[in-house]
Amino acid sequence: MSNADAKQRAAAWLRDLEAALVRSDVSAALALFADDECFWRDMVAFTWNIKTMEGKEQIAAFLSATLADTEPCAFRIEGDALEVHGVTEARFTFETKVARGRGFLRLKDGRAWTFLTVAQALKGFEERSGPAREKGVEHGVHRDRTTWLERRTAEEASLGYTQQPYCLIIGGGQGGLALGARLRCLDVPTIIVERNARAGDSWRNRYKSLCLHDPVWYDHMPYLPFPDHWPVFSPKDKIGDWLETYAKIMELNLWTSTECRSASYDDARKEWTVVVDRAGESVTLRPRQLVLATGMSGVPEIPQFAGAERFRGEQCHSSNFASGAAYAGKRCVIIGSNNSAHDICADLWEHGADVTMVQRSPTVVARSESLMELAQGPLYSEQALANGVTTDIADLTVASLPHRVAPRRAAKVYEEIKHRDRDLYQRLDKVGFLYSFGEDGSGIHAKYVRRGSGYYIDVGACELVANGSIKLKSRVTVENLTATSVVLTDGTELPADLVVYATGYGSMNGWAATLISQEVADKVGKCWGVGSDTAKDPGPWEGELRNMWKPTQQEALWFQGGNLMQARFYSLVLALQIKAREAGLPTPVYGLQPVHHLS
Amino acid sequence: MSNADAKQRAAAWLRDLEAALVRSDVSAALALFADDECFWRDMVAFTWNIKTMEGKEQIAAFLSATLADTEPCAFRIEGDALEVHGVTEARFTFETKVARGRGFLRLKDGRAWTFLTVAQALKGFEERSGPAREKGVEHGVHRDRTTWLERRTAEEASLGYTQQPYCLIIGGGQGGLALGARLRCLDVPTIIVERNARAGDSWRNRYKSLCLHDPVWYDHMPYLPFPDHWPVFSPKDKIGDWLETYAKIMELNLWTSTECRSASYDDARKEWTVVVDRAGESVTLRPRQLVLATGMSGVPEIPQFAGAERFRGEQCHSSNFASGAAYAGKRCVIIGSNNSAHDICADLWEHGADVTMVQRSPTVVARSESLMELAQGPLYSEQALANGVTTDIADLTVASLPHRVAPRRAAKVYEEIKHRDRDLYQRLDKVGFLYSFGEDGSGIHAKYVRRGSGYYIDVGACELVANGSIKLKSRVTVENLTATSVVLTDGTELPADLVVYATGYGSMNGWAATLISQEVADKVGKCWGVGSDTAKDPGPWEGELRNMWKPTQQEALWFQGGNLMQARFYSLVLALQIKAREAGLPTPVYGLQPVHHLS
Repeated sequence: MSNADAKQRAAAWLRDLEAALVRSDVSAALALFADDECFWRDMVAFTWNIKTMEGKEQIAAFLSATLADTEPCAFRIEGDALEVHGVTEARFTFETKVARGRGFLRLKDGRAWTFLTVAQALKGFEERSGPAREKGVEHGVHRDRTTWLERRTAEEASLGYTQQPYCLIIGGGQGGLALGARLRCLDVPTIIVERNARAGDSWRNRYKSLCLHDPVWYDHMPYLPFPDHWPVFSPKDKIGDWLETYAKIMELNLWTSTECRSASYDDARKEWTVVVDRAGESVTLRPRQLVLATGMSGVPEIPQFAGAERFRGEQCHSSNFASGAAYAGKRCVIIGSNNSAHDICADLWEHGADVTMVQRSPTVVARSESLMELAQGPLYSEQALANGVTTDIADLTVASLPHRVAPRRAAKVYEEIKHRDRDLYQRLDKVGFLYSFGEDGSGIHAKYVRRGSGYYIDVGACELVANGSIKLKSRVTVENLTATSVVLTDGTELPADLVVYATGYGSMNGWAATLISQEVADKVGKCWGVGSDTAKDPGPWEGELRNMWKPTQQEALWFQGGNLMQARFYSLVLALQIKAREAGLPTPVYGLQPVHHLS
Repeated sequence: MSNADAKQRAAAWLRDLEAALVRSDVSAALALFADDECFWRDMVAFTWNIKTMEGKEQIAAFLSATLADTEPCAFRIEGDALEVHGVTEARFTFETKVARGRGFLRLKDGRAWTFLTVAQALKGFEERSGPAREKGVEHGVHRDRTTWLERRTAEEASLGYTQQPYCLIIGGGQGGLALGARLRCLDVPTIIVERNARAGDSWRNRYKSLCLHDPVWYDHMPYLPFPDHWPVFSPKDKIGDWLETYAKIMELNLWTSTECRSASYDDARKEWTVVVDRAGESVTLRPRQLVLATGMSGVPEIPQFAGAERFRGEQCHSSNFASGAAYAGKRCVIIGSNNSAHDICADLWEHGADVTMVQRSPTVVARSESLMELAQGPLYSEQALANGVTTDIADLTVASLPHRVAPRRAAKVYEEIKHRDRDLYQRLDKVGFLYSFGEDGSGIHAKYVRRGSGYYIDVGACELVANGSIKLKSRVTVENLTATSVVLTDGTELPADLVVYATGYGSMNGWAATLISQEVADKVGKCWGVGSDTAKDPGPWEGELRNMWKPTQQEALWFQGGNLMQARFYSLVLALQIKAREAGLPTPVYGLQPVHHLS
């Protein structure tokens, strides 16, 4: 079937769907979906939630509940359609009563296998961009004219003092800044508080050798893509500087050197009371919406090993490790075997330290080059751009794959990676390194979605492990520490001057416990993960990331986090939810998720 | 003729040209050009100069002189061709022995009317961009690895001290920064010195109500276009902030709070000795190339009026006027009637001052809205973008029109403007305002090219003049000043608390006199203007802007200046000339212009 035929087929299907939806004929709509497996994933357009309906029963219930309020219409194919291995793929636009949206459709044998609908803009509250951009200066002559600088200065002086922000974002990393930028463009008065002295410090303050493990095409911030000469892998200080200039260019109200001290919600007044310390001054803010953008990784977790308090050397969590420079000739033990552990081991080795990695459980490992080519290449690369796959199209394509389906597709990629890099895996095996491709072979991205950890994107340290430069102790954990050593469960005693706990982070709701209360943290429950019933992501199946970018059990509390791609894509999804509330639009949430786990 | 036919015709013409050039058959090449009027404009590709050859005789001489060294080949149509009013228009790419280029061709009756060739890149010295971008991090493990931040910090510490810059740019406005960015991407060690404390201060320090008079689509800096929500007319402080972040993002070696004290060239060593004061520290720099990017406007010019020293009120040049805020109720006389004069009059009026404008000669006036729609719209607007006219294509199109031809085309636009805004012009006439459309009716852009002044882009002040809010004295000049007033040549005495001299600027070579020597200033002669033999642009005809972005009579001295569009486009043209010299490529300059005027 040609692409023109594919487009025609997709357009016909969309017409049929629209006809069914317009006359609220749920069974006619259902008949358009495949019998064996089908999904409707919606982001804010129908559900005011992020939700994947799996199978006809769930789709029927969803449509019956949302159709009357939503009034969907004007479904139109956008761009070209494709026919790939018997699946018709097409993007489309549509409208609802209050929103404009885009979507992605996959047909098998003429019926829908996957169907995605995402809100993109609220009618009457569109961003002033392109042809609708502001003029910038009021032509004509006006007594008492104020300039851009005067207005900006007045806003900075009043917001948070004489005027309350509608939204407060805790955290000025990529997540907070991207959401702040969206809200700025949607004209929602917002303050972002960042405890560091400069935007981007959360990157700058990490270990010296850190760089983004995702390539540049994946990492654009909203509105201001990287220039074409930006390096493939951004060094941490460079991305720090970029975020700092980004905040300035986007005119964000970013309060640096500001820490959140407490936050509580008044159910009656529908308002938060948040006390922050702004460079020594206590300021009480009363926003309507509170967003925790404190890092998807949550609070650092350090296991309680017996004897840790007796250890006379240095101990730190990986998040506090700055550089291997001070450790030439020193004996360093790194507990953990994921990304940070590998990076820190390599950094220490490069500085001449004696390094031992303690691997307690298997790690998903894949070479960066292989991932770039096989996993990310089709969507995020120069080649993808040359094929017409813009960042925007790539993001929509990623969103179009339900969490049930994505791991299956990924497993095929890892079959190829396994074969291509078999030498590396054999050599890792030989030194006893426990590598894995995940419980279902779905690799790194699935691990990231399920638990945000458990993998290493190999940028060089695997070779050091394989050739013994980094010593390895695997299939063991720590029994206890002595004054001068780490004792493992197999009896090995590792003399140590430095112990680094590359042992990961808790769930993001740990930040809610710290900043708000344990009660609220428990009320919203665990963040991240989809209920895959794999390590650190217990069932039941949820189908979407817990609590991320969508309503939680705590009214007016939101979680924004993840990598740069997620910061870019989901910042719009979340910003529209906040804007709708600010604008007073009805936002009936369909299928608010129950809490199954506290952390 | 369809666009497909146009493309075919242009391609056939290019094939014929290439065949003639490859066999150095100048007469065959000449036969492809129109008999009545033809132009070949070259920028750096054939001439290592910016030069328009007019008519067959000049083209023949040029080809005979340059063909052997240039070895042009590989001419290929780029994108679509157009047929407009019997003229075939097409863009193309080509190569020379050392460069890759682009061009623009106009055919009339199958023969070339205008032909443009512009160098875009030097072979073997291409920018590392897109697919060729740097990796950013060295994967693998490396003892003594240095990070991006360490390398950047080391460069900042050594450049200008233990390592000399190849190029020194005086001035950190849009011109200096754009050129600095190009040279950074071409890997030419460069320092930019800026006397203000922050990049962008040359904008911030101007009068409060200043905004760009050109719309956003015209104003993008190289590499980092404005985001889509950027306002149409950038307020001065916002553009100042943009330039400041630009310098940071592009990693320019910008020395702020640094003034150039002296500069001299050693002919034997082929090296400049430039003494700068860097925030109180005297630093001697020894660059090979020196660029004056001190503003195309040159040194402020204040006419010497009799009695000026006796005047007891305030007097300042327009470049030093900050705001009308202090002048409510004060009597203000503004000498001049161009852009700054109108802006300052309006600003004073908005603040409640009593304002009189003294118009000494006619002013070309056009409403901003009319210019945007009729003059800039076809190339720089949302509509242009929707039609596929990117900034890049627009710039090439502008460059493709020789200075002989552009005013003729512009005059047609002004015929329309004159008709559309006839009410305004009638009302200006009524109050005695001397408006004009230029000696040949070619309007504002031609004035800008010829003398960089003489016009007002109306953003509102015309109404104030027409309705008498701004008082007008025209067809007069200043006779003398008294202690309390300005006396005009018609005998009128204007009591005054403030006199603003909106009387323009000298030629850019005034900066060479100030910073280097009068001898060098005289050696290079007048900058800007094309020898149109109109006011302030005396003949003989030169065909290109004097001394701008091209070799001058002073070896290793260059002038970079102009608006944001020129900063964007010509920064590449100039950067390639500097890169070629750094790389040691032969750069035989064809037709170095003689000096006809000293200032």
